[in-house]
Amino acid sequence: MESYTVCQLQKDMRFEGFLLIRSADKRKDSKGSDYVDMNLSDRTGEINCKIWNWNPDDEVPESGQPIKVRGTIQEYNGRLQLRVEKWRLCTEADEVDMNALVSCAPRKPEDMLQQIHEAIESFRNEDLKKLTLGMLKIAGDRLRWFPAAQRMHHAERSGLLHHTTDMLRLAESLLTVYPWLNRDLLLAGVIIHDLGKIDEMKSDMTGNVTDYTMDGQLLGHLVRGITNLNKAAEETGVTGECVVLLEHMLLSHHGESEYGSPKPPMFAEAEALHWIDIMDARMNTMKAVTDKTPAGAFSEKIFSLDRRVYHPLMHSSEFGSQNSEL
Amino acid sequence: MESYTVCQLQKDMRFEGFLLIRSADKRKDSKGSDYVDMNLSDRTGEINCKIWNWNPDDEVPESGQPIKVRGTIQEYNGRLQLRVEKWRLCTEADEVDMNALVSCAPRKPEDMLQQIHEAIESFRNEDLKKLTLGMLKIAGDRLRWFPAAQRMHHAERSGLLHHTTDMLRLAESLLTVYPWLNRDLLLAGVIIHDLGKIDEMKSDMTGNVTDYTMDGQLLGHLVRGITNLNKAAEETGVTGECVVLLEHMLLSHHGESEYGSPKPPMFAEAEALHWIDIMDARMNTMKAVTDKTPAGAFSEKIFSLDRRVYHPLMHSSEFGSQNSEL
Amino acid sequence: MESYTVCQLQKDMRFEGFLLIRSADKRKDSKGSDYVDMNLSDRTGEINCKIWNWNPDDEVPESGQPIKVRGTIQEYNGRLQLRVEKWRLCTEADEVDMNALVSCAPRKPEDMLQQIHEAIESFRNEDLKKLTLGMLKIAGDRLRWFPAAQRMHHAERSGLLHHTTDMLRLAESLLTVYPWLNRDLLLAGVIIHDLGKIDEMKSDMTGNVTDYTMDGQLLGHLVRGITNLNKAAEETGVTGECVVLLEHMLLSHHGESEYGSPKPPMFAEAEALHWIDIMDARMNTMKAVTDKTPAGAFSEKIFSLDRRVYHPLMHSSEFGSQNSEL
Amino acid sequence: MESYTVCQLQKDMRFEGFLLIRSADKRKDSKGSDYVDMNLSDRTGEINCKIWNWNPDDEVPESGQPIKVRGTIQEYNGRLQLRVEKWRLCTEADEVDMNALVSCAPRKPEDMLQQIHEAIESFRNEDLKKLTLGMLKIAGDRLRWFPAAQRMHHAERSGLLHHTTDMLRLAESLLTVYPWLNRDLLLAGVIIHDLGKIDEMKSDMTGNVTDYTMDGQLLGHLVRGITNLNKAAEETGVTGECVVLLEHMLLSHHGESEYGSPKPPMFAEAEALHWIDIMDARMNTMKAVTDKTPAGAFSEKIFSLDRRVYHPLMHSSEFGSQNSEL
Amino acid sequence: MESYTVCQLQKDMRFEGFLLIRSADKRKDSKGSDYVDMNLSDRTGEINCKIWNWNPDDEVPESGQPIKVRGTIQEYNGRLQLRVEKWRLCTEADEVDMNALVSCAPRKPEDMLQQIHEAIESFRNEDLKKLTLGMLKIAGDRLRWFPAAQRMHHAERSGLLHHTTDMLRLAESLLTVYPWLNRDLLLAGVIIHDLGKIDEMKSDMTGNVTDYTMDGQLLGHLVRGITNLNKAAEETGVTGECVVLLEHMLLSHHGESEYGSPKPPMFAEAEALHWIDIMDARMNTMKAVTDKTPAGAFSEKIFSLDRRVYHPLMHSSEFGSQNSEL
Amino acid sequence: MESYTVCQLQKDMRFEGFLLIRSADKRKDSKGSDYVDMNLSDRTGEINCKIWNWNPDDEVPESGQPIKVRGTIQEYNGRLQLRVEKWRLCTEADEVDMNALVSCAPRKPEDMLQQIHEAIESFRNEDLKKLTLGMLKIAGDRLRWFPAAQRMHHAERSGLLHHTTDMLRLAESLLTVYPWLNRDLLLAGVIIHDLGKIDEMKSDMTGNVTDYTMDGQLLGHLVRGITNLNKAAEETGVTGECVVLLEHMLLSHHGESEYGSPKPPMFAEAEALHWIDIMDARMNTMKAVTDKTPAGAFSEKIFSLDRRVYHPLMHSSEFGSQNSEL
Repeated sequence: MESYTVCQLQKDMRFEGFLLIRSADKRKDSKGSDYVDMNLSDRTGEINCKIWNWNPDDEVPESGQPIKVRGTIQEYNGRLQLRVEKWRLCTEADEVDMNALVSCAPRKPEDMLQQIHEAIESFRNEDLKKLTLGMLKIAGDRLRWFPAAQRMHHAERSGLLHHTTDMLRLAESLLTVYPWLNRDLLLAGVIIHDLGKIDEMKSDMTGNVTDYTMDGQLLGHLVRGITNLNKAAEETGVTGECVVLLEHMLLSHHGESEYGSPKPPMFAEAEALHWIDIMDARMNTMKAVTDKTPAGAFSEKIFSLDRRVYHPLMHSSEFGSQNSEL
Repeated sequence: MESYTVCQLQKDMRFEGFLLIRSADKRKDSKGSDYVDMNLSDRTGEINCKIWNWNPDDEVPESGQPIKVRGTIQEYNGRLQLRVEKWRLCTEADEVDMNALVSCAPRKPEDMLQQIHEAIESFRNEDLKKLTLGMLKIAGDRLRWFPAAQRMHHAERSGLLHHTTDMLRLAESLLTVYPWLNRDLLLAGVIIHDLGKIDEMKSDMTGNVTDYTMDGQLLGHLVRGITNLNKAAEETGVTGECVVLLEHMLLSHHGESEYGSPKPPMFAEAEALHWIDIMDARMNTMKAVTDKTPAGAFSEKIFSLDRRVYHPLMHSSEFGSQNSEL
Repeated sequence: MESYTVCQLQKDMRFEGFLLIRSADKRKDSKGSDYVDMNLSDRTGEINCKIWNWNPDDEVPESGQPIKVRGTIQEYNGRLQLRVEKWRLCTEADEVDMNALVSCAPRKPEDMLQQIHEAIESFRNEDLKKLTLGMLKIAGDRLRWFPAAQRMHHAERSGLLHHTTDMLRLAESLLTVYPWLNRDLLLAGVIIHDLGKIDEMKSDMTGNVTDYTMDGQLLGHLVRGITNLNKAAEETGVTGECVVLLEHMLLSHHGESEYGSPKPPMFAEAEALHWIDIMDARMNTMKAVTDKTPAGAFSEKIFSLDRRVYHPLMHSSEFGSQNSEL
Repeated sequence: MESYTVCQLQKDMRFEGFLLIRSADKRKDSKGSDYVDMNLSDRTGEINCKIWNWNPDDEVPESGQPIKVRGTIQEYNGRLQLRVEKWRLCTEADEVDMNALVSCAPRKPEDMLQQIHEAIESFRNEDLKKLTLGMLKIAGDRLRWFPAAQRMHHAERSGLLHHTTDMLRLAESLLTVYPWLNRDLLLAGVIIHDLGKIDEMKSDMTGNVTDYTMDGQLLGHLVRGITNLNKAAEETGVTGECVVLLEHMLLSHHGESEYGSPKPPMFAEAEALHWIDIMDARMNTMKAVTDKTPAGAFSEKIFSLDRRVYHPLMHSSEFGSQNSEL
Repeated sequence: MESYTVCQLQKDMRFEGFLLIRSADKRKDSKGSDYVDMNLSDRTGEINCKIWNWNPDDEVPESGQPIKVRGTIQEYNGRLQLRVEKWRLCTEADEVDMNALVSCAPRKPEDMLQQIHEAIESFRNEDLKKLTLGMLKIAGDRLRWFPAAQRMHHAERSGLLHHTTDMLRLAESLLTVYPWLNRDLLLAGVIIHDLGKIDEMKSDMTGNVTDYTMDGQLLGHLVRGITNLNKAAEETGVTGECVVLLEHMLLSHHGESEYGSPKPPMFAEAEALHWIDIMDARMNTMKAVTDKTPAGAFSEKIFSLDRRVYHPLMHSSEFGSQNSEL
Repeated sequence: MESYTVCQLQKDMRFEGFLLIRSADKRKDSKGSDYVDMNLSDRTGEINCKIWNWNPDDEVPESGQPIKVRGTIQEYNGRLQLRVEKWRLCTEADEVDMNALVSCAPRKPEDMLQQIHEAIESFRNEDLKKLTLGMLKIAGDRLRWFPAAQRMHHAERSGLLHHTTDMLRLAESLLTVYPWLNRDLLLAGVIIHDLGKIDEMKSDMTGNVTDYTMDGQLLGHLVRGITNLNKAAEETGVTGECVVLLEHMLLSHHGESEYGSPKPPMFAEAEALHWIDIMDARMNTMKAVTDKTPAGAFSEKIFSLDRRVYHPLMHSSEFGSQNSEL
């Protein structure tokens, strides 16, 4: 059976493949039997299906999981629907290409985590090493798939790792231009700066943020990051200047009170962290908007940038594409 | 004769060495003869001298030039004064170390200019190559010693080249993280973005800005940069998208109307240019303030940053200095 | 045949008269033949028509042109449609009253242009005369029908001339109160201040702005005005203070960076130009809102003014109307 | 005896002429006798004098009055002093040229008042005529010499009349460009808009403001103007729309809450009043700064304008001066 | 007959009870007879009814009045409608519970007015007593049911009294903490601070604000409050400091020009009034939002607060409810 | 011996009494012997003294301590100096009236601490009781004399307790007007809201703040308060909603990001805390300024209020003083 994306589906087609559970609710049909109403999606669209005669004892699957499904496309009240013949939750063995189902970071979580651990390994300062590892431990497994934001930049599966590792690369290049910066401090700041987001937002495994947590609403990821850092310090027994420097880097990395930082960056590594953060966020947004805009045209006004964005013809000309093989 | 800096001079010392002319004015003594009142300086301070019996036909030397001078230190009305016995303007042959006389960029102008020309040579886009070279030609020889600002960041001899070449290095590293950016466009933007400053400020050869020009006051370096670019385009015969893209990069590189850019950056390379510019300016300021502040202490409030700056102890600790050998 | 406006049309009426092409697109009917779908309008409304059996070799007429059309009003799917029996593009000979078709300036373009040329003729300063004429030449023929804005003030056919000539009258009166102002400089500033708008916006001949140009988006009319002025200066060979003064007047006429001027007005004529500009824009807006609001009532909140506007009863009272005969 | 200005006085000169009392305080000399210490001034400077053996029953003259004085210039403790031989307060008969003593409006108060009364006479609306005359009556005699401000624009004797009458001329010209405005309403607004300043500031007869009044501090001239208008309305028996329209014009003439107007101008005449007011204030400031700045140079930064001001060479060139004979 | 609220009504139910007229318009049925189309409401919802065969000579009742009505619920075009059998306007004798029909202050207007009068009675300063009573007299009978705002805080029947009397209680407690404040002045300020709202808004007897008045639009309640105070002063013959102090309290009670006060509070009682006002407004809003939000959840973003609001679980826990019996 | 304040001292007077050590530095006299140079003060002024022949082994006393001193007033180089005959540090037994030496809170620290502990005792919620006591324990003994600020409001010995206890009284009154607020939560918030200031500023025992701490500069008292709260929670084992609610109250009590709170108050008790805090700060400032300003006059412009302050005559009139006996 040929493989289709959701946006290619038409009435009477047969479908077999992997889709993501967006929502799943148990309901009762007109005869009083249980059925489950599910919305399934890949990156191109969403389709509804009903799984009739649900065993009342079975648990309804959580949203955010990939399933394997087979069935036929039908039309009901003018909208397409998938009549499910067979389905099951996916396992590791399926080697599902999550990237086909949701927007994902361009690299595997494992690779990105390894890059982070290699950076930490290279620290000369043992205290910063301990604190940074302590923060990763508190962040836990969710870091693998957590996005960096609900909307805006890096709103994708593993977006937080994507953002962090691109910033690591920016930080490393910065150190070659400004070698007087303390390397360990800057890299530690980069690695931990957004880990508090894991406590700030509710995200399913697809990197889809449904809401903010109570901590996120009442405190935000800057302050929750600091209290996590205090835990890490206590557990590792680290004290002294490096703790308060990292606390300050967490607190000040948004740069201004207007953007949530009650203190502006007050030493060079904190200042550098702030600009690396904003630069990576902006370049990520710019790329996303440019990709969606035809060459030679302007986008609509982009809310988060408060401007329209132009996609230069030069990007796709013979001499403009010289970097694309990199 | 031992060599002293100006701040080491005391009454009755003998002095012989290179100093810079800060000001030189012809006056008449009580007998009606001409003399010249000069203020001379090195990086550590300033001292006054009078050159009596000036030949009325001789031209008074311009400020900003180094001279070789010999004489004795005297005290007059409680202030030290140099009684000049012999002096002459310096020549190339003197190989004066300008860095001892004024704050200078850490690299030689020749080296920095070469770096810029190598970058231009590497462009694949011939139009951008022509426009960038055209802009350098308009900037002319003053680029060698022009500062980047009157106060604030890179306010030093050859500061404009210093700022530009550090930004070039930042831009090159950025291209490894975001290879989809157009390399030629970004580098061209970096090279020309502040060349309009040469028309905006009046600077002597020591990089000391005495005032803004009429163009600087009424138009500013962003707009004067654009009109220079138009000249370069006309002279080189280049037309099309790349001209208006560079015009926009000049116009938008301050990022917001509040900071002088009537348009915000509207494509990715313009956005990148803006952040590279601000990052280099800030890191330069941060380094200057940190260097002046003892480790473990806070600076006074820095006007241009609107905050105090902390010099981390970690910078000078065993493990903090790992980058200093770079 | 009686003449109707579009808003008076009803089913089964016969119509013959002049209408404006708002849009015209060639399509294929169910049999594969070409037809043209047009929207036609006058000041009171818009009606759709189809011109069947279009000769595929004929060019589809551009929007913004007046046509003469005859036909019957029909109803299709609940909306009125004009079944066209005969039509042709208008010629000069038709002496179409554009004011019936679109919002127009209250005076003829020819008269307003003549007023401008008479003002220039009266200059004593030959350089300002040359520069101003040079700018008019660059603006070209589109000045005749260009509006002053897409929305807001003077958004009408020939609105740019309307705005400019009212400002000329304001400037002349100002000179009687402040005779120490340089007349030629102020009038030259008024005449050229918005000419850059012709490069900033895309407008059809009805004064309807459909979008901003690439220059408009990336540079704006202030900066494009300056580069045009540079062209005019080069072509006329004018140099010196008057060029940079006019450049500054173009750049600063929005008054503040918040409104797009990176420099505030820095000499008296530039300051005067700014206030004359804002006063004429505001009075034009006020008149338009007042005209639409019943006497004794408040308008809705006007977005561009951020307030509601009151139409005084006094305007229409016996003693309030004393100026209306002027 | 030749006539000198204060700045021309030197030791041992004889002086006879008119000066202004800046301050006058009764004190006791070393023998316990009363004397009066006075500071006297003309437009060019200030000189101290003592009047010995003051009759304790005589009233000390108020500051702000012109006196006729004769005496000799002496030096005391390095400062010049006038030893007074004879003095008296001036009378009408002296026909003192106040303009030689303090900064004055360029026209006589009588002429300006007459211009205002002629404007009122020309109103067709009897209610507005009554209200405006009622406001002038409340303002009273101090209007003749009251300045328009303590610093800033029109800070001169009779500056309030100067400002008002120049605005009247602006308003009249405006009416020729926008004849649909209600003439009486606009002129009435101009005449009364700043009369509340007489209750807001304390000024002596030279137009020198020493402080703000309690009303000025706690309410300001906008609100005190309104309560005065209410008095005028009650005394003249005028009611209806024209009262609230004038109240609004008083309240809104500063344009924005940031500048003290809780309501923005909400009808056309109120809007026009606001711009006429700001234009006249700005042109007056611009003239004062330009006059003090050499042609071809920039002023220092002007606090109230937040910018430096350029004095164009063109102002004094052959063709630039064409308006000066007006 | 059982009593239902509007939201409980279903097809075929019988209804008898009190409802409020929201709107009432006379129309003609298909036979040309008059009928009245009314919308009736209680606090829970709104229902439409038609009263057929209306006597053309009868006046249509004003909106805002309670009526007694009997009829049957029908369904028409999918919406419920009340077929009226009998109705009449209510009288005092009905003792209608307005609180069931619209949002009302929690206390009776009579009780609140009495609290205000008792406060005034307790003044030692006779002038403040006279002025405050004079202001209440000008406010008149509408004070009984006037709301404090159209939306936002205390937008309810008698909301102005509710707001004022809660502020009186806050002021009394404040005086125990800061006994150096002048009690009479603070209480007088509280009582009169918002009385100008009665002239600013149009409200029916249910406390429903339909629009702003001309005075409200052009002057606002701060300034109209001041001109009312001037009337009260003239009628009572009170002059002196206490008048201008109260004028200032009216003018400054919004605290900043941004919120409509051209002068900030400049003495202690004015400052206290401002904070009491804002505190009561905010606590009222907070209560309303908290009541509508389930415990343990966040509200939607509240426009007037620019934030989401959390309803603490603690409010309803065993130990959190300790104040609720007060 | 009569007792004098420092400002009453004159040459040759004898002095015996308590003074405060402002600074004390060991120096060497011309013979190489040690002496101590001290500045001593009471509330009225400061005087210098030298204690000759200092035993090199004795420790120099810390600033901020009261001493008992006896000696004679001498004049040296035109300035008064105290020649010390005898001195010793004070002990408890001296019962020094600190209020005569420095600006102090009007109540004793013991009384204020007792008020706080009684409030905590009255909590029904045991968790809040534990957390609040835990925070007091972390604050430790310095709370007894810590000021609330370096300048601005409550900059006095024990000013933090003064501010806290006045706020407690405000909170209690508030609870009578808004009984639906959770009493324990609000009072706990009041008690802990500023305790982080003890870690933010360096203060000696007189309540004189000399600088900010590293924590204060880099994190501020809001964030340090939160990390202290986390410690208290861990030590007391309290978890759950009440911890995050108190964290939020600490974080949000400045109300807006502009004033240092990254989150605005998001539940009713947090909102109330914010307004109680600002009200107490403002009333304290208002009282201080009013006390220094003569009745009937305006103060200079007060920087922290950005306005001048008026001292009403009414405060001191017969009827204005009615509260002063409270």
